[in-house]
Amino acid sequence: MFEFSEQSRDLQVRLQAFMDDYIHPNEHTFAEQLAGASNRFAPVPIVEELKLKAREAGLWNLFIPPSLAAFCDHEGIGNFDYAPLAEIMGRVLWSPEVFNCNAPDTGNMEVFMKYGTEAQQERWLRPLLDGEIRSAYAMTEPQVASSDATNVELSIERDGDEWVLNGRKWFITGAMYERTAIFIVMGKSDPDNANRHQQQSQVLVPRGTPGLEIVRPLTTLGYDDAPHGHAELRFTDVRVPLENILLGEGRGFEIAQGRLGPGRMHHCMRLVGAAQRSLELACQRVTRRETFGRPLAKHQSIRESIAQSFAEIEMMRMLVLKACKRMDEVGAQAARDMIAAAKIAVPLMAQTVIDRCMQVHGAGGLTEDYMMAEAFSYARWCRQADGPDEVHMMALGKQVIERYSDPD
Amino acid sequence: MFEFSEQSRDLQVRLQAFMDDYIHPNEHTFAEQLAGASNRFAPVPIVEELKLKAREAGLWNLFIPPSLAAFCDHEGIGNFDYAPLAEIMGRVLWSPEVFNCNAPDTGNMEVFMKYGTEAQQERWLRPLLDGEIRSAYAMTEPQVASSDATNVELSIERDGDEWVLNGRKWFITGAMYERTAIFIVMGKSDPDNANRHQQQSQVLVPRGTPGLEIVRPLTTLGYDDAPHGHAELRFTDVRVPLENILLGEGRGFEIAQGRLGPGRMHHCMRLVGAAQRSLELACQRVTRRETFGRPLAKHQSIRESIAQSFAEIEMMRMLVLKACKRMDEVGAQAARDMIAAAKIAVPLMAQTVIDRCMQVHGAGGLTEDYMMAEAFSYARWCRQADGPDEVHMMALGKQVIERYSDPD
Amino acid sequence: MFEFSEQSRDLQVRLQAFMDDYIHPNEHTFAEQLAGASNRFAPVPIVEELKLKAREAGLWNLFIPPSLAAFCDHEGIGNFDYAPLAEIMGRVLWSPEVFNCNAPDTGNMEVFMKYGTEAQQERWLRPLLDGEIRSAYAMTEPQVASSDATNVELSIERDGDEWVLNGRKWFITGAMYERTAIFIVMGKSDPDNANRHQQQSQVLVPRGTPGLEIVRPLTTLGYDDAPHGHAELRFTDVRVPLENILLGEGRGFEIAQGRLGPGRMHHCMRLVGAAQRSLELACQRVTRRETFGRPLAKHQSIRESIAQSFAEIEMMRMLVLKACKRMDEVGAQAARDMIAAAKIAVPLMAQTVIDRCMQVHGAGGLTEDYMMAEAFSYARWCRQADGPDEVHMMALGKQVIERYSDPD
Amino acid sequence: MFEFSEQSRDLQVRLQAFMDDYIHPNEHTFAEQLAGASNRFAPVPIVEELKLKAREAGLWNLFIPPSLAAFCDHEGIGNFDYAPLAEIMGRVLWSPEVFNCNAPDTGNMEVFMKYGTEAQQERWLRPLLDGEIRSAYAMTEPQVASSDATNVELSIERDGDEWVLNGRKWFITGAMYERTAIFIVMGKSDPDNANRHQQQSQVLVPRGTPGLEIVRPLTTLGYDDAPHGHAELRFTDVRVPLENILLGEGRGFEIAQGRLGPGRMHHCMRLVGAAQRSLELACQRVTRRETFGRPLAKHQSIRESIAQSFAEIEMMRMLVLKACKRMDEVGAQAARDMIAAAKIAVPLMAQTVIDRCMQVHGAGGLTEDYMMAEAFSYARWCRQADGPDEVHMMALGKQVIERYSDPD
Repeated sequence: MFEFSEQSRDLQVRLQAFMDDYIHPNEHTFAEQLAGASNRFAPVPIVEELKLKAREAGLWNLFIPPSLAAFCDHEGIGNFDYAPLAEIMGRVLWSPEVFNCNAPDTGNMEVFMKYGTEAQQERWLRPLLDGEIRSAYAMTEPQVASSDATNVELSIERDGDEWVLNGRKWFITGAMYERTAIFIVMGKSDPDNANRHQQQSQVLVPRGTPGLEIVRPLTTLGYDDAPHGHAELRFTDVRVPLENILLGEGRGFEIAQGRLGPGRMHHCMRLVGAAQRSLELACQRVTRRETFGRPLAKHQSIRESIAQSFAEIEMMRMLVLKACKRMDEVGAQAARDMIAAAKIAVPLMAQTVIDRCMQVHGAGGLTEDYMMAEAFSYARWCRQADGPDEVHMMALGKQVIERYSDPD
Repeated sequence: MFEFSEQSRDLQVRLQAFMDDYIHPNEHTFAEQLAGASNRFAPVPIVEELKLKAREAGLWNLFIPPSLAAFCDHEGIGNFDYAPLAEIMGRVLWSPEVFNCNAPDTGNMEVFMKYGTEAQQERWLRPLLDGEIRSAYAMTEPQVASSDATNVELSIERDGDEWVLNGRKWFITGAMYERTAIFIVMGKSDPDNANRHQQQSQVLVPRGTPGLEIVRPLTTLGYDDAPHGHAELRFTDVRVPLENILLGEGRGFEIAQGRLGPGRMHHCMRLVGAAQRSLELACQRVTRRETFGRPLAKHQSIRESIAQSFAEIEMMRMLVLKACKRMDEVGAQAARDMIAAAKIAVPLMAQTVIDRCMQVHGAGGLTEDYMMAEAFSYARWCRQADGPDEVHMMALGKQVIERYSDPD
Repeated sequence: MFEFSEQSRDLQVRLQAFMDDYIHPNEHTFAEQLAGASNRFAPVPIVEELKLKAREAGLWNLFIPPSLAAFCDHEGIGNFDYAPLAEIMGRVLWSPEVFNCNAPDTGNMEVFMKYGTEAQQERWLRPLLDGEIRSAYAMTEPQVASSDATNVELSIERDGDEWVLNGRKWFITGAMYERTAIFIVMGKSDPDNANRHQQQSQVLVPRGTPGLEIVRPLTTLGYDDAPHGHAELRFTDVRVPLENILLGEGRGFEIAQGRLGPGRMHHCMRLVGAAQRSLELACQRVTRRETFGRPLAKHQSIRESIAQSFAEIEMMRMLVLKACKRMDEVGAQAARDMIAAAKIAVPLMAQTVIDRCMQVHGAGGLTEDYMMAEAFSYARWCRQADGPDEVHMMALGKQVIERYSDPD
Repeated sequence: MFEFSEQSRDLQVRLQAFMDDYIHPNEHTFAEQLAGASNRFAPVPIVEELKLKAREAGLWNLFIPPSLAAFCDHEGIGNFDYAPLAEIMGRVLWSPEVFNCNAPDTGNMEVFMKYGTEAQQERWLRPLLDGEIRSAYAMTEPQVASSDATNVELSIERDGDEWVLNGRKWFITGAMYERTAIFIVMGKSDPDNANRHQQQSQVLVPRGTPGLEIVRPLTTLGYDDAPHGHAELRFTDVRVPLENILLGEGRGFEIAQGRLGPGRMHHCMRLVGAAQRSLELACQRVTRRETFGRPLAKHQSIRESIAQSFAEIEMMRMLVLKACKRMDEVGAQAARDMIAAAKIAVPLMAQTVIDRCMQVHGAGGLTEDYMMAEAFSYARWCRQADGPDEVHMMALGKQVIERYSDPD
């Protein structure tokens, strides 16, 4: 139990050292560079610097699993062994990009690795793996409940040797980012197909293609999540060549399904890290601060807050690890009960833990002086990202009821 | 029960009509003007426009109680009768300023009315009552737990015919705002006084006084709350004439105490309004949106969310009304149990209700497209404003234990 | 606001005095007599004694509203004015019977007053009003969701000049009680009627009628609620004369509807009293008990528990009062939103408050040494009584959505 | 991860088969025999029968760890490997005794194995291991906070060649049980010892020793937990020979400390099983029951309840497993953070899950027709057993704060 591979344990040590040496000392720098930027969605210099160091240190593309190890310099790391690494990165919200491990690029790279043609891989996957460009995944639409992927309405019509896209998207992470060069766009190419799961296709749209308009950045709970950001997009007669389709016409839903499991767990892992760091900040705060003549650390309700947070973080961590282990063993589809359990439990519990740790900090806990406020917003957002919790509870509830209602 | 005065009922109707006619139609305008402003802390033109209309409409300075009616054009409105008015204003977070009813100016004006000299009233209160300038109240300090007002450390020393101020403050609402012309500053003028409650004084520092530096704006949960904002301040040998003291040397704590009750209830009232509007938005959303082939409005868990929110809003509203009624009848000091009860229960419950209503909206609920995300942040901030909930629970718990532990 | 009638205020004082003089000093006696009884469902002597005193003291049938004052010795008391009286009684769970104010007899008496024939009133209502007999209301059935009154399946067939009843009922409060002489039984007399609300009738079945079998007592969370108890019943060819019908054939649903509002609020009022007393017990406990060298009363988290409980009790109380006031003013049907809000919020919140107060008492708090454990069970049971909370949330949610989804 | 030993996996299969074959089919029998017993604290015949079968089946004394395997017929089972076995037993609250694995006998046997003299083991341990007698552990006292073992006040004085005991105890599980033959009693033999941890001794008091009086059974949330029960005891000049001391004079605290870890985890494991079974019952219920024309299983909020419960059960299970693993690896003292985390999180979460599953069952869920009501009471009681949660939170909070407040 709890036995990570030697590779994972080694990477945990080295990753933690890198955090201590390069990430934590530069948190202030990052904040300053971003605050002082003329364009909040331009690359942040310190990130570019640190990427080089991370790659040199062999801390690069750690998200790639054994089955896709051909695409990277290491032997591949399963979800279970990757979990503690993602947790470490989750302690600083902007750090995953330093290791080329940030969403949604990890999921997009996986799509390219699994479904891309050689030409597509050459053109887009290679620079993604090298951290030279970023990518966006355009699924969610404002006017429909896109938690059900079959609901997307953006139209993809064939016209001669081109696909023509028309429609709207929003919450497209990374779309604001200057470095984002390629959009994977889900839409309907065959809306009348009797099989609801064959109506969709995914096509590649390079940034700058005429008709692709970035309407506006969106904030979530007040954060613009720069430099990646979340954008609203409009597609008006956007034309790309036929070869820009992924996997094949009518296979968009299939790609969407294959992409989901690991991404959700990555969010959960990072949230565990963010909650863990919040707890540590709270522990430090309460030993330095006095009220009513005693250090906060001696107040009973402070200790209760800390104790509860500790227990809840352990529970989150263990649930994520179990889901990852299952996913490694039987695949995301067969592990979907555990993945859903983590998806519905972890963001909400992380939000609660971080809220409690902020409260311990007084009003300052709500400001940009700590990572907690932004982590809180991240946790809250995760209750909607990849589908609202309610959708996952519906599916999980149905599955559990079936399992136990008739034991025969 | 629940019988508001005729004056209050009349004002409720007129205020609601004003909201419908002028505030709601201009919500988008406000957002656009603020987003497009070169300085986020400059006055927003639409607010200035609407102030004129509100004053014409007799919807001005509604917060002034009967005991201070000499300072306004109406006969004075008690806290109980003001509550539904503040609730209506709470539906649009920037609207209170339109009616000259925004924090912290209402509290500051009350201070001037009760404790100001004639000269001070002439110079500062008059333009405040006319909405020509704004004010800030500088109490909280970063390095001490200033929920206990006796802890403030900013030093106020007499030097000849001047007071000299040195120290730091933060979370000074309104300090960023260009229109803010006067700072009421709490500090220690007699730190060695054996009576801990006579060590403090409050002095008036006009904006622009040399040595008064606005270090930076602070965000809370990602919001800068422009144009008012919350600022960190540094006072370095700030000099003001002796007559700039309020009430008298050593009476700062007394002023602080007198200022607290109504302000807290105003926040609570507005939060009830913000929660109520969130509920209404949720009701509208669920009738327009379908998932899984049925309108959201027919899903059982949606109805449960709505029903719970309705019940919780009623409980908040009633608790605030009771606290206000008590305060009107016996004063803020004797009503401090009910005020504390509202202070600890309402912001947290409002946060929960608004969170639920956001969730019903999908990812869009977290964005600036609705008032909910900012209201959520406001509710969260209120759990720290005027002292963290924990401090109020300590005091209330002590008082309740004493009351019931020995019934004789 | 909060202005009870002079009558109510006078009764509050006298009722409280009666509690102090006679009820509290006999709590131990009641427990002993019940524990020592050879039949737990026989009348408890101390209750019979105290009933005489209560009647002498003019504290009798206080639940009767002004509209039915002809049936009692006072001028009638509305729900709002009755609420504080029920709250006082709620402090000792067995005390309402002393004042002839216990469920379900209050609701049954109201049914007789409103719908009974003169003969029925003479035979059953009179001794009920005199406290000589008790009654049961047989609605819930084990095999259907009887929260929807139209679902009942017990059959009531006419055979000559008799009604013949066949079917099952459970959770029939009072059915175990030896003093219970009459059962009001809801069933279907016309199951094929196209109007679902005219299929039901209610008939009177005296205890001891052949074929009426008390199958067993039921416990809720371990309590048998003796001496009243909750029973499972079986009706096998139970025959009663035609004149035993209430109001008329096919009008059972109408009676059921008319009975609901006040009963639910009485439960809520009593729960507020039970929670209030739990809070007071907790306050007393924490001043008498030390841990880690300090009285519990000085521990921060104890004070937080007390403060939260105080605030929550106030919110419950106010919500119930508002619902009662509305019911008095516009009737139970038009006030159903507020009644439902109280029904779903109060039992759960009372359960939480009492749980917290038990926890403060250590393991002893869970025992029969205090009234809390049984009150906790009562609160938990109320989340199912008169229909599970979920059913009320469904109806309330639907109503609120309709109200706000289209403001025109 | 999650890899149980082959021995454990084999036992899980056989234990589950035994439950299916003998325990579940006799749940009704147990209830009937207990309800019909003239003495609720006498042995229940079906349990005695099944014990023989369980022993034959090799499902006996499974709680004994490898370090004490000399005392049993198997090679010893660590806490981690025992956890899933205890979980299975937890599905039927009375079943652990069938396997000689019930509290507090398991802990008492461990005390005898580790600290008993050969004579003590011969006289008491042997029949305990054989299931012929039961034992009680008398620690908690009504008048002090005995969560701190140093607080006990029962006096143990030496008088010639005897120990003389005087004092009170309560919540002594098993003391009511007719089969209980031996009491391990903690008291103060040297109250003036400067070392607070050497003031206590533990002595053996056989049932029937003059002066040992069973004052009364105690109920928790209405349950008497028969046939084991919880009792209040009075010791009045109770005399036992000197050799009845355990381990040695002044070593009572040491024994108490050594006894704690596994017992707490056993409770947690069983609660996971009780919660799991409640979930399964809920799943079965919702497929059989309709409301508003649809099976409950299709209602959204039902599915949400099921999904949340599933996730919470997984989190509890994982947390307990991690704590057990740690305990096996480093001992209970070094694993005390994880043990405390499980102790504070699991009972409360189990209570919540079971409450939710009861609610899904309608009013029937609160009755004795299901195991849930009693399991709910068990979970609630565990929040006090072995010390109230608050005490464990204090200790855990302190430890976590120390760990993280200064990372150097």
